[in-house]
Amino acid sequence: MSKNSTYGLGLDFGTNSVRALLVDVSSGRETATAVVAFPSGRDGIILDPKNPTLARQNPDDYLIAAETAVRKTLAAARRAEKSFSPARVIGLGVDTTGSTPLPVDAGGAPLSRRREFRRNPSAMAWLWKDHTAFAEAAEITALAAAEHPEYLAKCGGTYSSEWFFSKILHCLRVDPAVFDAAASWVECCDWIPAVLVGETRPEKIKRSRCAAGHKAMFNAEWGGLPAADFLARLDPRLGELRAYLYHETFTSDVKAGGLSPEWAVRLGLPKGLPVAVGAFDAHLGAVGAGVSPGRFVKIIGTSTCDICVWPSDQSLDDIPGLCGIVDGSVLPGFFGLEAGQSAVGDIFNWFVNEIRPGGTKIGSHAELTKKASRLKPGASGLLALDWNNGNRTILVDQRLTGLLLGQTLHTRPEEIYRSLIEATAFGARTIIERFREYGIRIDEVINCGGIAERNPLVMQIYADVTGLEMKIARSAQTCALGSAMAGAVAAGPAAGGHRNFPEAQAAMGGLKTRTYKPDPARQAVYEDIFRIYRRLHDAFGTRAWTGSLFSVMKDLLQIRDRQLH
Amino acid sequence: MSKNSTYGLGLDFGTNSVRALLVDVSSGRETATAVVAFPSGRDGIILDPKNPTLARQNPDDYLIAAETAVRKTLAAARRAEKSFSPARVIGLGVDTTGSTPLPVDAGGAPLSRRREFRRNPSAMAWLWKDHTAFAEAAEITALAAAEHPEYLAKCGGTYSSEWFFSKILHCLRVDPAVFDAAASWVECCDWIPAVLVGETRPEKIKRSRCAAGHKAMFNAEWGGLPAADFLARLDPRLGELRAYLYHETFTSDVKAGGLSPEWAVRLGLPKGLPVAVGAFDAHLGAVGAGVSPGRFVKIIGTSTCDICVWPSDQSLDDIPGLCGIVDGSVLPGFFGLEAGQSAVGDIFNWFVNEIRPGGTKIGSHAELTKKASRLKPGASGLLALDWNNGNRTILVDQRLTGLLLGQTLHTRPEEIYRSLIEATAFGARTIIERFREYGIRIDEVINCGGIAERNPLVMQIYADVTGLEMKIARSAQTCALGSAMAGAVAAGPAAGGHRNFPEAQAAMGGLKTRTYKPDPARQAVYEDIFRIYRRLHDAFGTRAWTGSLFSVMKDLLQIRDRQLH
Repeated sequence: MSKNSTYGLGLDFGTNSVRALLVDVSSGRETATAVVAFPSGRDGIILDPKNPTLARQNPDDYLIAAETAVRKTLAAARRAEKSFSPARVIGLGVDTTGSTPLPVDAGGAPLSRRREFRRNPSAMAWLWKDHTAFAEAAEITALAAAEHPEYLAKCGGTYSSEWFFSKILHCLRVDPAVFDAAASWVECCDWIPAVLVGETRPEKIKRSRCAAGHKAMFNAEWGGLPAADFLARLDPRLGELRAYLYHETFTSDVKAGGLSPEWAVRLGLPKGLPVAVGAFDAHLGAVGAGVSPGRFVKIIGTSTCDICVWPSDQSLDDIPGLCGIVDGSVLPGFFGLEAGQSAVGDIFNWFVNEIRPGGTKIGSHAELTKKASRLKPGASGLLALDWNNGNRTILVDQRLTGLLLGQTLHTRPEEIYRSLIEATAFGARTIIERFREYGIRIDEVINCGGIAERNPLVMQIYADVTGLEMKIARSAQTCALGSAMAGAVAAGPAAGGHRNFPEAQAAMGGLKTRTYKPDPARQAVYEDIFRIYRRLHDAFGTRAWTGSLFSVMKDLLQIRDRQLH
Repeated sequence: MSKNSTYGLGLDFGTNSVRALLVDVSSGRETATAVVAFPSGRDGIILDPKNPTLARQNPDDYLIAAETAVRKTLAAARRAEKSFSPARVIGLGVDTTGSTPLPVDAGGAPLSRRREFRRNPSAMAWLWKDHTAFAEAAEITALAAAEHPEYLAKCGGTYSSEWFFSKILHCLRVDPAVFDAAASWVECCDWIPAVLVGETRPEKIKRSRCAAGHKAMFNAEWGGLPAADFLARLDPRLGELRAYLYHETFTSDVKAGGLSPEWAVRLGLPKGLPVAVGAFDAHLGAVGAGVSPGRFVKIIGTSTCDICVWPSDQSLDDIPGLCGIVDGSVLPGFFGLEAGQSAVGDIFNWFVNEIRPGGTKIGSHAELTKKASRLKPGASGLLALDWNNGNRTILVDQRLTGLLLGQTLHTRPEEIYRSLIEATAFGARTIIERFREYGIRIDEVINCGGIAERNPLVMQIYADVTGLEMKIARSAQTCALGSAMAGAVAAGPAAGGHRNFPEAQAAMGGLKTRTYKPDPARQAVYEDIFRIYRRLHDAFGTRAWTGSLFSVMKDLLQIRDRQLH
């Protein structure tokens, strides 16, 4: 640490907890961090025993947990560096899950603070993984497909039950009292910066381009949010709401405001500290991982989020199957492109924790990984599809299911485990090929997340399957790091920060030295197997050809649903 | 027991041991039994560590083990019934595995008795599961397809590496000294009765219609064995051998001869005791289970053998995919039709013993069966193909592999276990439908074997999937019982035996009282799932339509073979 060190503070609001991370603005050194769990519900999530699709959060959990996380981080920084002082923190950034909208009153207070709504989940934040609005999502998709296909073209062809308008429309239908009481709805990533800067009136909140573009069909091409008459066709009251939402959006290099006096005291940070406009965790995570044109970022966890960028002054067709293409959602001046796999770590966890082959202990991947590492590509004769949780990209189909093929009487658990890893690699390659087909350059892949950090077998298979070098982000906390970068950019060079994200990435980001290069021999084998994977992928996942098996998985799910209900 | 009871003795030579079973000819009561393991090799099988396809047996093992098994059985009968005397045994029948041919000298002695061949596996019995002759099988199939398609039409369209001529041709190729020393080749089921009656000269041995028809392309339509010029095209020496094989075959109601003085002493049985012509285990097993027109017998073990009969005076087309259609191979006067599934119990054993889900103990099917019993048809959304060991009927394709489809992140081991049972039921139904398409009447199914006896879940699923009542043979040893019936018929009514098989079956056979009737509600669900199974079956198992996935499993096996060698 130099005596002149300045710091960016990143606040990363996850599904169960918030992390604060203090980062040296010039070196990227991560000086201190703290994680604080959300206090309400089960692991921070309000559930409904009668409705497994419901997942809500108490918005005040975010504030209580953030206050503690920041104070703990500052205390840890003081212990780590004697010369540290909160005055050296020059900017603060925020990322959150999303779409996680909450209904607010005219002053921006969550409706869940009102006595009459205090225990009402409709008045809380509707967590990203809440799927109560599946019927409304289908309704929005159908209407948009018929009348405004352009709305869907930028978000993968399907409007999801996880997203902004589905949730608001569902609230309107099932709990009109809450809907009527709401002056507006605000994404979590917009509301938290608004609270910190002390300006929560909905019309004054600086809304995130990322959230608006990826989850609310916001696009400059059609004048912002979907047209009022479109929303009114879903419900007249939804059409009326449009005027109380927003018309302008901002990228995360923009300052949302200065830290309010109240929050300066609560957090122990300087009053007026620049707070950046918020964004979603994966998008600021990609920034923290070093995303740039040609550098594809994979955030690998239970599922994956794949992010890349492309100059927004260059022409770009709609890319079928992508979750979103939004100008400025990741880096200003670039299209942010988002794709993803519905399950990656979750598939490995399913095999280890649910099937528990050979009496595998719950959570124990080590033994299977060790044995699977000794196998040669293709030597098991197995091939799997990575669809145990549906397929997000490129098929955008939640009603697809898993497949394992090639079993004999001698098939061993570690062979299945390896084939599941390979399946996710083939899924990753399918996404990369889709990007490339539409002219997006991909030179290298930067991976982040626990699996990328801890499982060299997975990374090597990804390299061998994709033919691309796999690199690992240096930081284990790229989301919080991206938020800290946003803070440093919002603060600007005059305050000791950075002029823009590329500069912040160059100074604060970096890669681990260990990388994974494709091995030509293994690559050649996987080339053959990938061709077979694509045959199965297209046979079961598309209607494209005579004799398609497209309906097979759905027919089985329909029978299942009939038998279970 | 009446004081006038007479007995049939069945000798059932399995893969690892021989069973003797003493049965009351008028009541079918099983008075005594004993099993004796073959002494040589591993579990009676001579293996080659360098060649996993090799499986041979020492022919003298059969004799040594049979002598002990008969003596133990007679001793047990004496203990069970004071009035029992070996003089009351009126006939003896023999069934064995097959095709299990052995090279013999001019006197019928196995070449393995010669000093120079004593440790030479080529001079031993070539056990049914020996697959060393896979190349020769392909050669025979190709030549027959081109020049004598009628040869293949009666045996499923493919001549197997397990069968008579493949093995002899392979011996000729790899060990000409043994081939040259052989005066003839004899099926195990022909050789053992020949030894017992003391007439082992090859030209005098009464050869089994069953073995000849099912494994050696013997058929009256073309004058017996394949033409000498056909065999000569494979190798001139094979063409020459034809004259030293056989020209006539016999059904198992025929007496092969009377027990020789030497063997009367060795076994402790009456001299001259009628010994029936031998047959294969599954065929006499079907007789023991009560096979008759309309009564379909399933012998369910690690794999299954399905047997039914059809009057040979009625016209019958060739049925594609069947392992064999042979006049008199099961019951005289009837076509014996054989089909089978390459793996049934073996698939369940694979899942329990190799995958060991949830730490299942090896061999412990009980817990999974219990949990699987609680599931409703279709409620898991899973569907499997029963091809972990290829498909014998109706696809006749050993290069097919297993498939499991419909997995989610919540799929449980018992759901997979149930889907594997269902897969074998769908495979069973596919065979039954093939028989019916060709006009074979099937009114009821009689099951035998350990799974049929001990697993009500499997039997109920079979009933619900096929829509047919599942009955269970009363005897747990239908093969040995069928052999005892053959002994009783060969002895004839004058000796206290039976005039023919139907009479023997009526007197000595029977069913358990518990049967499994289809449940209409479950049947309806399985009807839907079976349609999906057939789509997958045809997509992966046939070339019949555009976009067929026929090559998928083979392509993967080819890659596997390349990677392993």
